Amino acid sequence: MSSSKINSKKFKVKENEKISLKDFDPGFCGEFENKKQAEKQLEQDIQELSELQYQLYAENKQSLLVVFQAMDAAGKDGAIKHVFSGVNPQGCSVHSFKKPSANELEHDFFWRHYKALPQRGEIGIFNRSHYENVLITKVHPEFILGENLPHISSVNDIDKDFWTDRYKQINNFEKIISKNGTTVIKFFLHLSKEEQKLRFLERIENTDKNWKFSAADIAERTYWDSYQKVYAEAISNTSTEYAPWYIIPADNKWFSRVAIGSIVVETLKNMNIKMPVLSEKETATLADIKLKLLKD
Amino acid sequence: MSSSKINSKKFKVKENEKISLKDFDPGFCGEFENKKQAEKQLEQDIQELSELQYQLYAENKQSLLVVFQAMDAAGKDGAIKHVFSGVNPQGCSVHSFKKPSANELEHDFFWRHYKALPQRGEIGIFNRSHYENVLITKVHPEFILGENLPHISSVNDIDKDFWTDRYKQINNFEKIISKNGTTVIKFFLHLSKEEQKLRFLERIENTDKNWKFSAADIAERTYWDSYQKVYAEAISNTSTEYAPWYIIPADNKWFSRVAIGSIVVETLKNMNIKMPVLSEKETATLADIKLKLLKD
Repeated sequence: MSSSKINSKKFKVKENEKISLKDFDPGFCGEFENKKQAEKQLEQDIQELSELQYQLYAENKQSLLVVFQAMDAAGKDGAIKHVFSGVNPQGCSVHSFKKPSANELEHDFFWRHYKALPQRGEIGIFNRSHYENVLITKVHPEFILGENLPHISSVNDIDKDFWTDRYKQINNFEKIISKNGTTVIKFFLHLSKEEQKLRFLERIENTDKNWKFSAADIAERTYWDSYQKVYAEAISNTSTEYAPWYIIPADNKWFSRVAIGSIVVETLKNMNIKMPVLSEKETATLADIKLKLLKD
Repeated sequence: MSSSKINSKKFKVKENEKISLKDFDPGFCGEFENKKQAEKQLEQDIQELSELQYQLYAENKQSLLVVFQAMDAAGKDGAIKHVFSGVNPQGCSVHSFKKPSANELEHDFFWRHYKALPQRGEIGIFNRSHYENVLITKVHPEFILGENLPHISSVNDIDKDFWTDRYKQINNFEKIISKNGTTVIKFFLHLSKEEQKLRFLERIENTDKNWKFSAADIAERTYWDSYQKVYAEAISNTSTEYAPWYIIPADNKWFSRVAIGSIVVETLKNMNIKMPVLSEKETATLADIKLKLLKD
């Protein structure tokens, strides 16, 4: 029935697959003949998404968590806006995770994310996520010291096992929530270094956009290769059947949006959402109420 | 510039105005020649709302809290869906307040609402709100006992002063948040008892909708007159310049939606939102970064 030109398998990282980001083309555009065709499909997907969200909300048993991770300017915010505007905001929550507060650092790194998980019946979106704890902190291990962890008193204590253990913790966290009804999908928006440069320049030159630009963004760009490596390691270690990673080519915003929209719709369809059906007793109660109402 | 056919003043309750809901016509349809014309205006308002939200988000100094209260089936959920779908969910949060949990009852009645207030730059929507604490609890004062308040050991302790004091507490709460950058507007969706009956019957008869119907809804209907009275008292005592109530005729869904959309847009316009402007120093930093980027 679906006429999607997006083959989600192409972007999905298999469990235990070891990937290198060099093998993925950020400029990939799929089978679309042109941008217009992609936009048309996205429109259809958004409509379907809206209907599926209504069913999810009515069912009130499952939820969907969509994680977005990427380098700066890869288009996370734009993708969220373009794919999820149109969805009823009652039933869809977006959490943008910034630098953890002093209070948040007094808890384990899942704490603030756990509190933000979607309720039953809802779609939750994480703009950045618990993955920052194996990404920015792996590039800058000194940040780990701020977490006041037992057994970690200097960066020398942060060894390979530390990171392997964190990946396992993440897998366990995602397994727990998926066993309890939350389907998890994770998008890495894969941008080229050259395209990031162009987008940064555009943000600087466009006075309507330059409030978005911060000097911190440019500082992290100097760690580009380290980030590509830690992303690949994180994705390789945490893509699972119950919480897969999708590597989304992001040099063309229109393509990443249609790919994300299509995969979200496919995921919701596979969740086997069932509209609530009243029991015989409930139906009888309603019939009673109807009689009373008619006399009212 | 605005060609809105909605005169918000008609629906706004003035500070210290004592109202009776009998003086408001739930079937009022305004100056629209037909439903289509209203839908067209709503479409325009939604587009404007989306742009204003972007500015609010960029400014990151103010927020907007929109409170919805009404009898069951008055169309709160539908209004939220139709007015706020189209808004970027990153920057818009909806909280539906249900019966307070045991844990929530261990705190004062503002606690759970305070935690759900919108962040700077965001629109927050309360589907039911702190007002339930002077509505359902005033109709059923025995619910107050569950709050374990000092000096309240039986319903006889809950006198006129108790409610007057609660209204003042609400005014103070709303004054505090408005002084700190949160604009507050409150919508009472004013439905007739006859129209509620028709909508309940429709929910019962329509198998796609009957999961929405609960026997509790019909139980509260028997307290209709009490609710009309406590709503009028709450609105009369808590409509202020800084947090006004709007009584929205709700017998025609299309009318209540266009009225709400128009008032939300008007409110955002009056918030005098300013897009961020970079300082000279920030502009110079950006110019430096640009040069470095171009050599990258």
